[in-house]
Amino acid sequence: MPAASLRLASFSTLRFLSFFPISNPSPYSLFRHRRRLLFEDSAANARRRCFCTGTSVSASSSDGKNNQGNRIGSKVGEFRRKLRVAEVKGGADEGLGRVGQSLSVMGWVRTLRSQSSVTFIEINDGSCLSNLQCVMNPDAEGYDQVEAGSVLTGASVSVQGTIVASQGTKQKVELKVHKIILVGKCDSSYPIQKKRVSREFLRTKAHLRPRTNSFGAVARVRNTLAYATHKFFQESGFVWVASPIITASDCEGAGEQFCVTILIPSSHETTDSPIDAIPKTKGGLVDWSQDFFGKPAFLTVSGQLNGETYATALSDIYTFGPTFRAENSNTSRHLAEFWMLEPELAFADLDDDMACATAYLSSTSYVKYVLDNCKEDMEFFDTWIEKGITHRLSDVVEKEFLQLSYTDAIELLLKANKEFEFPVKWGLDLQSEHERYITEEAFEGRPVIIRDYPKEIKAFYMRENDDGKTVAAMDMLVPRVGELIGGSQREERLEVLEARLDGLKLDKESYWWYLDLRRYGSVPHAGFGLGFERLVQFATGIDNIRDVIPFPRSPGSADF
Amino acid sequence: MPAASLRLASFSTLRFLSFFPISNPSPYSLFRHRRRLLFEDSAANARRRCFCTGTSVSASSSDGKNNQGNRIGSKVGEFRRKLRVAEVKGGADEGLGRVGQSLSVMGWVRTLRSQSSVTFIEINDGSCLSNLQCVMNPDAEGYDQVEAGSVLTGASVSVQGTIVASQGTKQKVELKVHKIILVGKCDSSYPIQKKRVSREFLRTKAHLRPRTNSFGAVARVRNTLAYATHKFFQESGFVWVASPIITASDCEGAGEQFCVTILIPSSHETTDSPIDAIPKTKGGLVDWSQDFFGKPAFLTVSGQLNGETYATALSDIYTFGPTFRAENSNTSRHLAEFWMLEPELAFADLDDDMACATAYLSSTSYVKYVLDNCKEDMEFFDTWIEKGITHRLSDVVEKEFLQLSYTDAIELLLKANKEFEFPVKWGLDLQSEHERYITEEAFEGRPVIIRDYPKEIKAFYMRENDDGKTVAAMDMLVPRVGELIGGSQREERLEVLEARLDGLKLDKESYWWYLDLRRYGSVPHAGFGLGFERLVQFATGIDNIRDVIPFPRSPGSADF
Repeated sequence: MPAASLRLASFSTLRFLSFFPISNPSPYSLFRHRRRLLFEDSAANARRRCFCTGTSVSASSSDGKNNQGNRIGSKVGEFRRKLRVAEVKGGADEGLGRVGQSLSVMGWVRTLRSQSSVTFIEINDGSCLSNLQCVMNPDAEGYDQVEAGSVLTGASVSVQGTIVASQGTKQKVELKVHKIILVGKCDSSYPIQKKRVSREFLRTKAHLRPRTNSFGAVARVRNTLAYATHKFFQESGFVWVASPIITASDCEGAGEQFCVTILIPSSHETTDSPIDAIPKTKGGLVDWSQDFFGKPAFLTVSGQLNGETYATALSDIYTFGPTFRAENSNTSRHLAEFWMLEPELAFADLDDDMACATAYLSSTSYVKYVLDNCKEDMEFFDTWIEKGITHRLSDVVEKEFLQLSYTDAIELLLKANKEFEFPVKWGLDLQSEHERYITEEAFEGRPVIIRDYPKEIKAFYMRENDDGKTVAAMDMLVPRVGELIGGSQREERLEVLEARLDGLKLDKESYWWYLDLRRYGSVPHAGFGLGFERLVQFATGIDNIRDVIPFPRSPGSADF
Repeated sequence: MPAASLRLASFSTLRFLSFFPISNPSPYSLFRHRRRLLFEDSAANARRRCFCTGTSVSASSSDGKNNQGNRIGSKVGEFRRKLRVAEVKGGADEGLGRVGQSLSVMGWVRTLRSQSSVTFIEINDGSCLSNLQCVMNPDAEGYDQVEAGSVLTGASVSVQGTIVASQGTKQKVELKVHKIILVGKCDSSYPIQKKRVSREFLRTKAHLRPRTNSFGAVARVRNTLAYATHKFFQESGFVWVASPIITASDCEGAGEQFCVTILIPSSHETTDSPIDAIPKTKGGLVDWSQDFFGKPAFLTVSGQLNGETYATALSDIYTFGPTFRAENSNTSRHLAEFWMLEPELAFADLDDDMACATAYLSSTSYVKYVLDNCKEDMEFFDTWIEKGITHRLSDVVEKEFLQLSYTDAIELLLKANKEFEFPVKWGLDLQSEHERYITEEAFEGRPVIIRDYPKEIKAFYMRENDDGKTVAAMDMLVPRVGELIGGSQREERLEVLEARLDGLKLDKESYWWYLDLRRYGSVPHAGFGLGFERLVQFATGIDNIRDVIPFPRSPGSADF
């Protein structure tokens, strides 16, 4: 049976799992004792986690006893971090400083190969791309499990040994194993074997794909990008605001929305949702008054309008949360659920907005942070996913971002010695072939910001320029990904905004609170939105957006 | 007309707004020149934002010209941060180091009072609780607007002046104003006047309430708590994972869920949702095959199960995102939409879990970070919301967290010389009166963790202890708030988990991917969930949960 060897909760199995015979029945002193034995670099390892130590406390505590002397209530132990492979190998010396150290690592077997008298096991714990190569002789404790064929790809193990300089060329150090413990077997049906499997196939195994090199690397880079994002805005004095996910506000407008309801009688009972049970009015309409919120409610398409309410109180804010589109786009560029970053700056105009977006994406704070913190992952992407991606990212730091007006962009396209599929004409929106030409050809791979678009093709809230024809909008285009950021200065003049709503036949009453921001101490303000998954694509070179979010949602697909 | 005085986009109004006559038509050099004049401590202010500078670039650029010589494409400017009141007054010297500096601040008028020859204006920009006191004589430029009564509470202004030592006792420094610009008027209907308004009333003005002391402070503390959370887990080697919001997975189970659908034909058109238009099967059931995801989909109640898939690949992860409950609880403790933190640790047991939760909440990393970074806000809460709250929070850092088993807790309650409303009996869940007694009376205000609950009252995924009666679950109770954290070690033994699902008559097929984690290299793992709004309540003393999230969602209420 898989995982059958894993029993942690009794003293007898604890003895099996621990690395020396139990002499002291107090689990706390047991742990302390063992820790001394196990970790010789005690300063660094004093708080390391050994997963099996505490279980015995649980066992004794569930008997109603405790181990600190006083009858009821004992101290919570100190938090012990797991020693991660990244810490063993991740330093500048790639682990050479640890040669001679005795330590213990826990993870999953990536590969196992036996040569006459020596077995190599590659162990990965997800903390970094590379595995810890473990070398084992038949005299190592637990070798019988290797011999019996129980230690397979995908199995979880705990290995104890000494760090030695590696004979191989692929790594500086390896672990000479003294003892191996099989923590959890791996059933032979494990779908992620050594041979490469397609990313399409792995989408059907979204629960296991983070165990592969690509998806592990994506997860780490995504995490680093998210944290770098928070870091940048926090250090710039912005306040993170949670914009609402469910909204019954009438002024969302753009984009198809999902309805959020409790009117349809279903709780995962697909066969049990009679139409007749939906509350209706005499006229045969859905009776929204009986719904949870008393009226139709939807999933948000953007936190911007809500963000503006906080920017006009706290000055600089950002939202970072999920947003939704119910568009039936089954493409590699669209998701029904995606994360969006939306900073909003008060007392700021479009130039400030562009400068903020540029500062965020470039310079020391961001790309550098990713390149520094995910060096190995980025090299992986450079080798396997998109040749030259680290260079392209460094470029973003070093090259200056350029801006040009929409009018100039149209001029540029008209002059281009190139045939486009879609027409180029002032007043028409730019298509991705146009955007690609501008950023990839005309500006040779630089990020370019196009600004001051015709007001007819942009949203109602964008600030009208003095020409009466354009609005203070901007789109940032980056090579390969296309539009990464879209932003604008917001229309802060009450009467101009009201005229615009009237012109679009939008109901001013619905926008009462949004208009209030212009009624009470209005300020020039601007902001932008960045689709976070697009950014992860930009940083990793992964071409399908479904592969840069853990559990992608798209038409027909919301499993896991 | 409100906000009528705000026009920024032409040179003529720019001249009005800028602080010296325009001599150079190039907006870039204009800005540079002005900056030199305005900011005498140029090192600190070199990148400060003056909201009106760039608009003229926009105006000229939309004419199709640009200002860098080359015909198409010019550099994006440098990101200029706004000089914030927090930076002026926030240092240890409360601004005394800036005495003599000439600077400019933008914000909203909190109060204005005129004494014979001098006018005091309190300006707040949301960067901190306290206002910048601005003192103005009639000879200051723009005084005519003050005289005309245009500078009212709520109006936005830009003030330029010199920092001087304050005569008052409430602040160390104030700004002697040389010039004031009214940026946006405030209509006299402004609902947030000086007199205190109730938090109930302010809930109906959720778009304006961040402009009050309380809600501004809550927003800043909430932000700081969120960032401290990211910081703690990032520095501990955890990877942030975006768990999905929409899920059609059948194994969510607990809690009432919102349905996410596009079947009901409504896009904010409440009067236009005929029942007949909902696709149905011949049997009169909702035809889910025509819905966006091809089957019923819901808003997630927890990211835990998804989080486990990443923990068993990357070792230590955390989710931090919105979760939902469609429960009809119109109380001060419940929200339909709230943010949840859910760390998950691989190779970890319940002790590791408790230790992690404790380390997160206490010690150097967290509470201290909030107390340090939001000192003024915390003092405000201490004075106005909950006497002694900073002391209570410091307590959490200094006192040790205690643990006791559920069995011991029952024993303690039975021995208590106290009458409870709800019965105390082994096997029954603890009610909040019991929890309060334990943490507030029995343990005198310490945070207490109760562990090893009867398995009948806990979720299917919690690990069964050796006694066969209890599971490795834990609830952390804190004074006043009650349960702040709930966690458990997860059942990692495939056959035990399957037996448990069978026992609860749950369909194993639905849990295929969750069971796979136990089939392929299973590891002991544990995690916990923390309702982020509860944490904000704990840190601020705010008693209604609707006042610690920007836009609360509850039965009948999803406005804004």
